[in-house]
Amino acid sequence: MIAEIISIGDELLVGQVVNTNATWMAQQLHEIGIPVRQITAIADNSAVIIAALNEAFAHSDVILVTGGLGPTKDDITKRTLCSYFKTELVFHQPSFENLKKLYAARGWGEISEVNRKQAEVPANCTPLINHLGSAPGMWFEQDGKVLVSLPGVPFEMEGIMEEYILPHLARQDNQRVVAHKTIQTQGIGESYLSELIREWEEELPENIKLAYLPQPGMVRLRLTGYGESKEKILKEIDERISTLQKLIPEQIFGYGNDTLEQVVGRLLKEKHLTLCTAESCTGGFLAHLITSVPGASDYFQGSVIAYSNNVKHAFLTVSEESLREFGAVSEQVVKEMAQGARLRFNTDFAVSVSGIAGPDGGTIEKPVGTVWIAIASKSGVTAKKFMFGEHRGRNIQRASLAALNLLRMKLTVDS
Amino acid sequence: MIAEIISIGDELLVGQVVNTNATWMAQQLHEIGIPVRQITAIADNSAVIIAALNEAFAHSDVILVTGGLGPTKDDITKRTLCSYFKTELVFHQPSFENLKKLYAARGWGEISEVNRKQAEVPANCTPLINHLGSAPGMWFEQDGKVLVSLPGVPFEMEGIMEEYILPHLARQDNQRVVAHKTIQTQGIGESYLSELIREWEEELPENIKLAYLPQPGMVRLRLTGYGESKEKILKEIDERISTLQKLIPEQIFGYGNDTLEQVVGRLLKEKHLTLCTAESCTGGFLAHLITSVPGASDYFQGSVIAYSNNVKHAFLTVSEESLREFGAVSEQVVKEMAQGARLRFNTDFAVSVSGIAGPDGGTIEKPVGTVWIAIASKSGVTAKKFMFGEHRGRNIQRASLAALNLLRMKLTVDS
Repeated sequence: MIAEIISIGDELLVGQVVNTNATWMAQQLHEIGIPVRQITAIADNSAVIIAALNEAFAHSDVILVTGGLGPTKDDITKRTLCSYFKTELVFHQPSFENLKKLYAARGWGEISEVNRKQAEVPANCTPLINHLGSAPGMWFEQDGKVLVSLPGVPFEMEGIMEEYILPHLARQDNQRVVAHKTIQTQGIGESYLSELIREWEEELPENIKLAYLPQPGMVRLRLTGYGESKEKILKEIDERISTLQKLIPEQIFGYGNDTLEQVVGRLLKEKHLTLCTAESCTGGFLAHLITSVPGASDYFQGSVIAYSNNVKHAFLTVSEESLREFGAVSEQVVKEMAQGARLRFNTDFAVSVSGIAGPDGGTIEKPVGTVWIAIASKSGVTAKKFMFGEHRGRNIQRASLAALNLLRMKLTVDS
Repeated sequence: MIAEIISIGDELLVGQVVNTNATWMAQQLHEIGIPVRQITAIADNSAVIIAALNEAFAHSDVILVTGGLGPTKDDITKRTLCSYFKTELVFHQPSFENLKKLYAARGWGEISEVNRKQAEVPANCTPLINHLGSAPGMWFEQDGKVLVSLPGVPFEMEGIMEEYILPHLARQDNQRVVAHKTIQTQGIGESYLSELIREWEEELPENIKLAYLPQPGMVRLRLTGYGESKEKILKEIDERISTLQKLIPEQIFGYGNDTLEQVVGRLLKEKHLTLCTAESCTGGFLAHLITSVPGASDYFQGSVIAYSNNVKHAFLTVSEESLREFGAVSEQVVKEMAQGARLRFNTDFAVSVSGIAGPDGGTIEKPVGTVWIAIASKSGVTAKKFMFGEHRGRNIQRASLAALNLLRMKLTVDS
């Protein structure tokens, strides 16, 4: 069974609204093992809707349509479905009862003529009561294929999906089982990563597929398996992951929806350790990542953002000689920043970053993208140099993630 | 001229990634007056890609394709385009030079055989150099129609769109005259804003349309006008904007793609003033916004992120009595934070934020979302209380933007 999603709404085609409905639906279908062939967004235009329905029926077995069911003039999905199925609208009493209940519960008063029409549905469909809104869902069957029309309001669509459609489809299609797992990596680009793990990738069995999902500073690896049972597939995937873990132990920081800042936060919490940061080129983004995790105040004390050399000296006790002799972007200074911060904040760990984010400030010796990161702990201070790219925003992001990953590695061996 | 967008990537079809690329592209095309007929997301599957291309060429004049251009095995767009256009890959020296530059700048060492292939393009295309990444864009023409293939990494796609594709398409399609202007507002929600400006909105002429584009803490208002000449439309739009400016002077902080941090940065630079921040609940996000602007080091000295009371006392000279008596989230403490920071960093202005971002830490008197913001300057210190919502991430964002907007207002009257 193959599914397809059609999202109807002018707002999607002018870039005013991101199509999160389709993403949610695809995720839900994926979880019950029904692959989605295509997601199509089109405007509230009858001819375009009919063309899309024809194409979708040619490709797929189940077509989920959202949007265009409201009471206003630009909502034309229902009329279009009537002409597509060569039928007409009929009044559906249970949907009208639902409408009355909704009006009563929300104190909306009389139901106008325009809104009464919301209880009308094409004669050939099975109406699906929408307990969270006024437009019913509609289930159509034709030549062994299914088309479902749903409101575009996210929680109404989700309600009808969860109540009727997902259970119904799962029952119809119980042969195919799919499971997947995501591996989070940091510090290595997609292409170099693919070379490092090429042999491992080539040895994957036919029923397990690998996808690379790159983001600035991170690459997620998604393994999708097909088989008889979810348990069996997940076991197979886990075996492959444990081999991978040995290949790139430094790069893998987590699984599923883990973020690096969550993983670091968990490690600090478990070990009852405290942290501070001292940032120059990352300008607060590292601290922002750390404090975006709820409960970060349990381990995070604070940060000094030392954008000028004066501040590095006054707040972090970096020596004026080091600043003069080596410059702010140097091993010496970044180490003094970490050590100074650790002492002044009185924490177990301190992470410091100093670099040239760009676009200005680069030299031949220290081009834009040069970043030094240091970590101080009771066992001393270590520093590492990175060469990132030319884009200010991404340099800030990559430097912050690299700093978190260095800290993560330190936390798993040290302390 | 009608456009269509095809997004290629397995991750879109399993609901792992929201298709923000397509939304961005649709918005850009809409802004230069080219309507988007359809957005289609499909998997990295050759047969499905070819079917989608056939359908798109039947509907539309310009087809923008993203994704599947990476060096890994699952990226098959380039091969598929070759078989679609019945051509083969050829080596493109300028793309290889770009690749070499990229490798040199990032210190990635030797270019492997796999990565060298990134400089190969179908023989019938015009390659578009990708200055921000390794996969070039590709411009194809066939039977008077255009197909463009772009990398799926958002900033790389955006770079090539802005540098080549949007200007080129705008030049090809100059019959329809459309012009627009965006007004940036801060500090007022979409629905309250729409009430405030309802009369103004109702008086807009037929040929000028208003769209609300809400983001956390900000609402952009986009005015789109249609007419005979761009100059005439822009003149009409400007007249409407000057009326609006009188209605909501505090909320409007800029126009077009202005960000609040850029506007604040410009004001500081013009007036030769310096700034520091002292942050508690925003955890570095305020400093991050300020330092995301290139050249921020001209006016920004640094920040103390005082996540614990000890740090507020030790680094910002907040008195222990005030912390004890009023608590960290109070008018008294936030004022002392701003004054202490201003003295210690020796700047003209200091902005401080202290609040409860959530999800924990709220009380009946000070619920989650309570935030105090203070601004200190030579003319003294002022503070304002805000009540935001329950969502940690959005509270951090809204508090940081509110702080910047307070500073902006101060900078336009004070100093």
